[in-house]
Amino acid sequence: MIKTRIAIVGFGNIGRGVLSAIPQNPDMELAGIFTRRPESVSAQVKNTPIVRLGCSNDFVWKRERIDVAILCGGSKEDLPRQGPFFAQLTNTVDSYDTHAEIPNYFATMDEKAKTEKNVAVICAGWDPGLFSMMRVLFGAILPTSKSYTFWGPGVSQGHSDAVRKVEGVLDARQYTLPIQTALAKVRGGKTPIFTPREMHRRLVYVVLKFGASRQRVRREIVAMPNYFAPYKTEVKFISADEMRASHSQYPHGGFVLASGVTGNGNKEGLEFSCQLESNPEFTGSVLLACARAAFRLQEEGNSGAFTMLDIPLSYFSPLPVELLRERLM
Amino acid sequence: MIKTRIAIVGFGNIGRGVLSAIPQNPDMELAGIFTRRPESVSAQVKNTPIVRLGCSNDFVWKRERIDVAILCGGSKEDLPRQGPFFAQLTNTVDSYDTHAEIPNYFATMDEKAKTEKNVAVICAGWDPGLFSMMRVLFGAILPTSKSYTFWGPGVSQGHSDAVRKVEGVLDARQYTLPIQTALAKVRGGKTPIFTPREMHRRLVYVVLKFGASRQRVRREIVAMPNYFAPYKTEVKFISADEMRASHSQYPHGGFVLASGVTGNGNKEGLEFSCQLESNPEFTGSVLLACARAAFRLQEEGNSGAFTMLDIPLSYFSPLPVELLRERLM
Repeated sequence: MIKTRIAIVGFGNIGRGVLSAIPQNPDMELAGIFTRRPESVSAQVKNTPIVRLGCSNDFVWKRERIDVAILCGGSKEDLPRQGPFFAQLTNTVDSYDTHAEIPNYFATMDEKAKTEKNVAVICAGWDPGLFSMMRVLFGAILPTSKSYTFWGPGVSQGHSDAVRKVEGVLDARQYTLPIQTALAKVRGGKTPIFTPREMHRRLVYVVLKFGASRQRVRREIVAMPNYFAPYKTEVKFISADEMRASHSQYPHGGFVLASGVTGNGNKEGLEFSCQLESNPEFTGSVLLACARAAFRLQEEGNSGAFTMLDIPLSYFSPLPVELLRERLM
Repeated sequence: MIKTRIAIVGFGNIGRGVLSAIPQNPDMELAGIFTRRPESVSAQVKNTPIVRLGCSNDFVWKRERIDVAILCGGSKEDLPRQGPFFAQLTNTVDSYDTHAEIPNYFATMDEKAKTEKNVAVICAGWDPGLFSMMRVLFGAILPTSKSYTFWGPGVSQGHSDAVRKVEGVLDARQYTLPIQTALAKVRGGKTPIFTPREMHRRLVYVVLKFGASRQRVRREIVAMPNYFAPYKTEVKFISADEMRASHSQYPHGGFVLASGVTGNGNKEGLEFSCQLESNPEFTGSVLLACARAAFRLQEEGNSGAFTMLDIPLSYFSPLPVELLRERLM
């Protein structure tokens, strides 16, 4: 079997999640890791080329060496720079998740990927990603339905990452919590109109750098647009020891619900949910399935930016479509 | 707006479901109904061409008149004849559901549709259809997972239809019932190996024709391959009055579950479910979304057979993909 050669760009939680998922996918192999801390990564991962991010001239990371680069950086600062750069080098997959900026990011990635006939799958993961797919599917099937997305309880890496960029923050963990009374309403078939703060609240644990101001850090977090400003956000300051002891796992979950009425007044309900013990490992698994799709799309002559909405489901699977029809239809 | 012109072929439960869904989809319009009982359908549906099935020569049902024919007949006897016939006339959507025969049916429809550059979406609905999509998606993302499909409690139209073809049966209703102890095991994260009869049982209500033998009818039903032979099936004989009074609704539902472990031993669970007050109206809604996709695929120059696994999700939606990215990602 000719394996798809995967480069991991950025070796944080998601990068490690991708690494842990590769052995479960016999059609994939690791080609190398790009990181800002090559010394530390070399100590953890053996027999793999490790390249310092931003100094990639010394390594010909073109199509001869890798088929797909999985970009595992954050949406706020990493991906807007790394995405367009790597999309010119090879096929890419990323989990860009700043919802308000997706159309702009798509346009940039589409242009860059097309210049070199590469495929860039953007906004992959579970939300955006699987959950987006369900929102689109549910709305297409039940045009009069209202759909709801609830997250958590769980750690949001994008939000934790955003908090870590705040001046004075040493480490942070953000928990997204669904508001139970809202959840109960929807589950009961009601279709209320919620504001964001009526559906979820956010709880942030912060380890401060020495001398940083609690008041200023809290103020900057709760005012952060898109991430925290629309929600009721609670910020708790803890020690590095407590962070390690109580917040080293990354569970998450959530669901998409749609409730609608068909022609003669009958109620129809659709629901998708996930319960994850490890959000980064699961996200890494989704990104690998997208890498498989990206490579196939390119092999078939496609180029430019794609989201998971633009890709037939059979492309995510390692099985030939004839087998899928035979066994899984 | 130029509307997609839909022909309904077969005016049973699913045909009526499609009809009831058209007004909810402003991009669709009804072009006509093919039926074996044009007189009875004309009395129910006004201002629509009604064509006798099998005598379509008197009506030029080519692309000038309709964009997509939705084939609403049964898989056992109707679709194997009607599918290949209509696939040569126009784009088609059907809900063929004899799982074991899907590869053969795909091959036939692919050949027929391609001869006239039409698109045939086969096996559409919720299972096969939405549930197939979830099985493929879950397996692609969690390669080590095991996935389970449970149906019911609810009326299976395909199975009811199959029973109605048995000599001596006037009317029939088949309820699929999940076996609760099996369901509980999977929900608890266990991944047992089940035989079909360990997951579901089947309950059939039959109204006999005058003089028909209960014993023979029961024997023929429980021995029917694919449909009943692999299950514990109970057959109850009731009067036509009782059938009308107690079994005139078509609720259904079910779910697809996958439970797997990612790289470092973390457990991840995925679930999709539907709860339907009207299975035929919901199925009709899915078929209409597929009709939209079929027409788009053909407009883009594709032809041949497709399943819902082969179609990007954005194709099912009436919204432009730019809006989907902006609003639903």
